[in-house]
Amino acid sequence: MDLIARLRAGLPGEAILTDPDVTGSYANDMASFCEAGTPAVVVLPRTVEQVQHVMRTASELRVPVVPQGARTGLSGAANASDGCIVLSLVKMDRIIEINPVDRIAVVEPGVINAVLSRAVNEHGLYYPPDPSSWEQCSIGGNIGTASGGLCCVKYGVTAEYVLGLDVVLADGRLLTTGRRTAKGVAGYDLTRLFVGSEGSLGIVVRAVLALKPEPPQQLALAAEFPSTEAACRAVCEIMARGHAPSLLELMDRTSIRAVNDMAQMGLPDSTEALLLAAFDTPEPAADLAAVGELCTAAGATEVVPAETAAESDLLLQARRLTLTALERVKSATMIDDVCVPRSRLAEMLDGTAAIAEKYGLTIGVCAHAGDGNTHPTVCFDAADPDESRRARESFDDIMALGLQLGGTITGEHGVGVLKKEWLARELGPVGVELQRGIKDVFDPLGILNPGKLF
Amino acid sequence: MDLIARLRAGLPGEAILTDPDVTGSYANDMASFCEAGTPAVVVLPRTVEQVQHVMRTASELRVPVVPQGARTGLSGAANASDGCIVLSLVKMDRIIEINPVDRIAVVEPGVINAVLSRAVNEHGLYYPPDPSSWEQCSIGGNIGTASGGLCCVKYGVTAEYVLGLDVVLADGRLLTTGRRTAKGVAGYDLTRLFVGSEGSLGIVVRAVLALKPEPPQQLALAAEFPSTEAACRAVCEIMARGHAPSLLELMDRTSIRAVNDMAQMGLPDSTEALLLAAFDTPEPAADLAAVGELCTAAGATEVVPAETAAESDLLLQARRLTLTALERVKSATMIDDVCVPRSRLAEMLDGTAAIAEKYGLTIGVCAHAGDGNTHPTVCFDAADPDESRRARESFDDIMALGLQLGGTITGEHGVGVLKKEWLARELGPVGVELQRGIKDVFDPLGILNPGKLF
Repeated sequence: MDLIARLRAGLPGEAILTDPDVTGSYANDMASFCEAGTPAVVVLPRTVEQVQHVMRTASELRVPVVPQGARTGLSGAANASDGCIVLSLVKMDRIIEINPVDRIAVVEPGVINAVLSRAVNEHGLYYPPDPSSWEQCSIGGNIGTASGGLCCVKYGVTAEYVLGLDVVLADGRLLTTGRRTAKGVAGYDLTRLFVGSEGSLGIVVRAVLALKPEPPQQLALAAEFPSTEAACRAVCEIMARGHAPSLLELMDRTSIRAVNDMAQMGLPDSTEALLLAAFDTPEPAADLAAVGELCTAAGATEVVPAETAAESDLLLQARRLTLTALERVKSATMIDDVCVPRSRLAEMLDGTAAIAEKYGLTIGVCAHAGDGNTHPTVCFDAADPDESRRARESFDDIMALGLQLGGTITGEHGVGVLKKEWLARELGPVGVELQRGIKDVFDPLGILNPGKLF
Repeated sequence: MDLIARLRAGLPGEAILTDPDVTGSYANDMASFCEAGTPAVVVLPRTVEQVQHVMRTASELRVPVVPQGARTGLSGAANASDGCIVLSLVKMDRIIEINPVDRIAVVEPGVINAVLSRAVNEHGLYYPPDPSSWEQCSIGGNIGTASGGLCCVKYGVTAEYVLGLDVVLADGRLLTTGRRTAKGVAGYDLTRLFVGSEGSLGIVVRAVLALKPEPPQQLALAAEFPSTEAACRAVCEIMARGHAPSLLELMDRTSIRAVNDMAQMGLPDSTEALLLAAFDTPEPAADLAAVGELCTAAGATEVVPAETAAESDLLLQARRLTLTALERVKSATMIDDVCVPRSRLAEMLDGTAAIAEKYGLTIGVCAHAGDGNTHPTVCFDAADPDESRRARESFDDIMALGLQLGGTITGEHGVGVLKKEWLARELGPVGVELQRGIKDVFDPLGILNPGKLF
């Protein structure tokens, strides 16, 4: 086959996978309800030059290229299309530099988030973005999907930590964007354009990341509420009073029960909503006490501050297990990612409960409450066509509600295949036209991750 | 005249200025050495619809449009071109919303930075970006040039506070970008693309800005050093040890003397470098003590912590006066804005001193030292052609040095007319080609601030 032969001219044999049993396992990421095609070949380059060779070959032969990280994404952005080259960056996993004076790290895209986090910790530094999949997901994937995590309420999202990029363009040329300085405004911000572009504009092969000083270990509290509305009132009070929690998460009753069922963690599963707040300040106990009082005033029936880091970790572990636990409720789940202004969070949660009732479905919700970013998770039986249809419709209703409340269809998971139609609704025709125009500038042949985003 | 008549069809009479004596005063911003043309007309719209009318008219007649804020910019980005419409946004100066729960403000572009800062303070909130011109400059101008300021070392630049925009496009259509939520990754980040685009992609008519809780009042110290190299060593130590100063500024001997000459502030003008550090933490005195020790260890001959907010303000006032003071040294100044990795700051300062000596010029340097962002200010006699030529050449040498040290030609002032050639050198041909491609998507007729950036 011409494609394979051409690829072999610039890649070592072990970097090219063609066995359909093997390549098939690269067909999709972790999203439900997203179509995936059959790749022609999977390539695993180890150098920038090899990536350039792949892109030059793809351009010459007009073959679509689907870039992949660890395939932990939740929107199908890494799903293969028929006959494509899957370009997996997982072998480019070197940490090139960690610089405590400049507070930067320079990495290849295949570095695992947790590996980088631990490596910079050893220098007294902190790389905040912490998606729930942080032990598996790669920095390149984080950049492609503009990942968030639990820390965002204080530290922001991946985009805020990407200072500069090396990118292989569709035609194989190498582009360097941004800087390794703390500031810089030389021309349009191409770096930021690549963050969240889901591999549709170029292949990130190196990133300069900003780091923070490592904060003190965080200390958490849990507060039980008789309603999600009361919990949301507490969230608004906490933020309006100027507190800076390092984490502010909400679990609804369905989520709490699912976690207890799976892991017997002894969460208070008769309660309607559990709020978890943490502080990594010099005096976390004082901050927790103040926040505990606000929770009580908002109607919390019980406030339990962790007294040790180990207790805090246990609470956070419960939160991190939520999606996995909800996946056991039925045979399939669809996780949503609607983000609303935090002042509208209660309406979002109440509305989601009403949608669950309307469709006769179980929808568990956990939320990065401090950010107004909810993850309603629809649990359904994939073998039941009617329930699957209702699941899909409820998912649409949830996004419509988010937009109606002044929110966005995606806070941190991205658009991929899953939310293409909804992206057009959120952006409107003028926005879509301009976004397509930008896509054409970077990828005139349309070979970079076609069929995603638009 | 057809242009004026067409403008009158959608603008009230007082919004159109045609008297050449008046329009001439809108010809340029505060940059030196930047050409400026003669505008055909100045328009001062008060509504989005009026801005749309201006852009539709300009598109139909193919007339260039130069958007302007308060014209405090330092790169000529707001300079008129011959026959253009100057589109001044200063009359669109409403603060539309301040929301403490969502921690956002919604504003029109003509709002003065200091007016917004004070307005949000009244709600216990903080809008960090604080360019030296903050009492004059407008938020729209800050967005156009991606302004920085003294607070950036802790709080980052304007770009990090712009969540969403309403933009009138070249053809008069209205585009809404971004969001009013804490997070959001729906499509390419057009919001960030507009920040720093110097009016070359569209006219910002409304902005959703992120706010922070108001921090405690900051407390500063001053440390005297026998060399800029020793002061830079202290800067590196402070940042490597994980301190989070709210301000970390350096003034060289020339700057100190200029300020003393102008304002008799009693700064220690026999010292080679003065470092100013401040903390807005709960215990600033403790942080200042720790930083003071690092300064002493790095060679400081004297460390003077302010004991009151008033003393701190005085120190910061000296720093804020530096540019004005340097402007009195000779008949003209050129202020540069090179940003290097902070680990290279000492080399940047030593190299700048060598350049001053080579050209026989006075170059005063103040720096946002914590960011590695230096403002070498060339003082020269504009009536002396030879000295003017040397000033221009030294300016080029300074930018070349910045690039050589891994830095950028502009940390926060932008490119405008002043640094067009240097932008091409920093970006390289591939980067320029892509940036021009983006420009063409938004402005196919090339009427938006032509001749700037590229």
